Amino acid sequence: MSTDKYQQLGASAKKTGVHKALAQAGLASNHSYFASFSDDIAGDPTYRSFLHADGAGTKCIVAYLMAQETGDLKWFRGLAQDALVMNLDDIFCIGRPERLQISNTIGRNARLITDEALSEIMSSYAELTEMLKSYDINIDLMGGETADCGDTVRTLVVDAVMAGRIKAENLISTDNVRPGDIIVGLANTGRTVYEKSDNSSIASNGLTLARHCMLAKENAARYPEIIDPGLSSDVAYVGPFKATDTPAELAGMSVGEALASPTRTFAPLLARIYSVLGQEVHGVIHNTGGGQTKNLRFGRGNHYIKNDLFPVPPLFSLIQKYGEVSSSEMYRVFNMGHRIELFLEERHFALIDTMAKELGISAKIIGHVEKNSGSETDNQVTISSGLGTFNYLL
Amino acid sequence: MSTDKYQQLGASAKKTGVHKALAQAGLASNHSYFASFSDDIAGDPTYRSFLHADGAGTKCIVAYLMAQETGDLKWFRGLAQDALVMNLDDIFCIGRPERLQISNTIGRNARLITDEALSEIMSSYAELTEMLKSYDINIDLMGGETADCGDTVRTLVVDAVMAGRIKAENLISTDNVRPGDIIVGLANTGRTVYEKSDNSSIASNGLTLARHCMLAKENAARYPEIIDPGLSSDVAYVGPFKATDTPAELAGMSVGEALASPTRTFAPLLARIYSVLGQEVHGVIHNTGGGQTKNLRFGRGNHYIKNDLFPVPPLFSLIQKYGEVSSSEMYRVFNMGHRIELFLEERHFALIDTMAKELGISAKIIGHVEKNSGSETDNQVTISSGLGTFNYLL
Repeated sequence: MSTDKYQQLGASAKKTGVHKALAQAGLASNHSYFASFSDDIAGDPTYRSFLHADGAGTKCIVAYLMAQETGDLKWFRGLAQDALVMNLDDIFCIGRPERLQISNTIGRNARLITDEALSEIMSSYAELTEMLKSYDINIDLMGGETADCGDTVRTLVVDAVMAGRIKAENLISTDNVRPGDIIVGLANTGRTVYEKSDNSSIASNGLTLARHCMLAKENAARYPEIIDPGLSSDVAYVGPFKATDTPAELAGMSVGEALASPTRTFAPLLARIYSVLGQEVHGVIHNTGGGQTKNLRFGRGNHYIKNDLFPVPPLFSLIQKYGEVSSSEMYRVFNMGHRIELFLEERHFALIDTMAKELGISAKIIGHVEKNSGSETDNQVTISSGLGTFNYLL
Repeated sequence: MSTDKYQQLGASAKKTGVHKALAQAGLASNHSYFASFSDDIAGDPTYRSFLHADGAGTKCIVAYLMAQETGDLKWFRGLAQDALVMNLDDIFCIGRPERLQISNTIGRNARLITDEALSEIMSSYAELTEMLKSYDINIDLMGGETADCGDTVRTLVVDAVMAGRIKAENLISTDNVRPGDIIVGLANTGRTVYEKSDNSSIASNGLTLARHCMLAKENAARYPEIIDPGLSSDVAYVGPFKATDTPAELAGMSVGEALASPTRTFAPLLARIYSVLGQEVHGVIHNTGGGQTKNLRFGRGNHYIKNDLFPVPPLFSLIQKYGEVSSSEMYRVFNMGHRIELFLEERHFALIDTMAKELGISAKIIGHVEKNSGSETDNQVTISSGLGTFNYLL
């Protein structure tokens, strides 16, 4: 198999195609801030406004498979969390927004996705926003659009858009990340005080690669609606597992449960950190598409050295093993154990560690920032772990 | 064939399933206003905020077919217009918003939809917002999300979310629609001064029914990615045409061109009407899902009599003919010639007519409102046309 499996599966961690299309259309994005914004929609010069889009991606397929195999519609609930949190945690990388609004867009094949399944997704949005309120994170549910479109959607697409405002003086720019900063990682495993189950760390990126490496062809044979029939048989669903299998490495989780594990939000912790440290936080990165190499697009002339990562969560080890994915590609596609990185002076770590523990989150200094000797504007990332040492340029 | 073809095709004009799911999740919508809103995101008590979601639906399939058949990627451009206008014109039904923001969400099968096709969609958003600026309708492009997800999306999904604010005192509530009001329809055919080609009137609703009634099985045989393989062969692509065929009735348009005709915006005209008539406009309805019966969900105890509609545009006559669709269902699924309805006193018609003509739009008194003798809260719609007389209850 080629070294870039993700590309063969019709997905891309680098998203070069999308970046190229945006550039061609004159819509290249700003790389000084993790999430983009405009001047204030209400015209207040001390505020900025944003409108952010993201979704649950092909994790919808895992939820669908689990619902089919177990007869339990609860599996659809996590998709609302994925779509909401993928937006919320991106936004929290630029600081503490004030009030937020969310709109959900669902595309379904109404032949396969029932009204009851829809209802699970929608009530999950309501439950989540209730929970977040107790951390003073206020998100208004603004309705949305559900389209029945089986000729375009094989099973289900769950997307969301989040709107809000943030005080300009509180914005966190990754331009402030500097040599000497430590990199604090927030673990994506375990269970926070506001979660009901352990997290596998998968979040909502790399699901295409994860599904095809873990799940066996028999899943797609039973449910042909979970596969693009144009995919090469060499790469499609080449794993050993049924969704309900429980390999020992996953310590009680089924493969489907691990792959469907809902994306954790770090917003309650980030809100507390910002309220104490303010602009002492030089930058925050959400390791989404691009995994541990996400940093490459942010900061100026930095060399991000990540040499003390969290242990690789067992799901990622299984994906790597059964997919025969190179370690270098694993770090480029998956978060590999931590999804949020904070850049700041080392003296602040103890405080972050304490606040994180209170919420059931592990924090750790996973590396530091040096000057990039090769460029004043571009960045590089070097990852050293038990898997080897890997160097990345944009 | 059954009388409700749309349902057999996996779509629903009534969207009863979606409404049920929303109700189950405690998220039933407000029917006093055509589009929903919350109190102001910036906390100003004299404003309201909205976040609205909609998309191009399965028109994406027509654009894809035409691009494949002609080798021209321009066909993808209209999809940005569909997604933008389906939001914009819904929003304009509650009044004149101030500044607007739009975020686009695209899901594609990257094996079939190229980066160049994406670029056409994105630059079309930019071109459209430029055009609207000349009518003082200001929409900020806020980026978005493009997901490569061929295992969930057969070809392409193009959605958008629009955010904005509106002065509370300018809000138009359909509760103000009253017996005695005339219904002014704004024609969806012809060519406005801000359009480059004639409009077939299809807009972005009923495309599932329209595609399957008009296009022949050979289209799906050549491009199996345009069909849900679970659809019954009795209803799927049962029409006589290839996308590039040009039946005489369409007066030079190909079938694909007519089905892909980009959704017209009436926002420039509505903005002018509101600036002159203000709250003299008692209500505005956008005939989207539900077609000419959309009114049923708005107003209180009204009987909407529509007895002088525009001539049925030829595309709809062809759909009805080849799909053997009942006239009653045609009015429930399609706009049948006008997409916007204004409710107000008859003395204001001449002014609206003049303003409409200046923009190349035909306006017409298509009916009037009476008291619903059967209910003080529910509404009914009666349509009388050359096709017959049809009565609708919710």
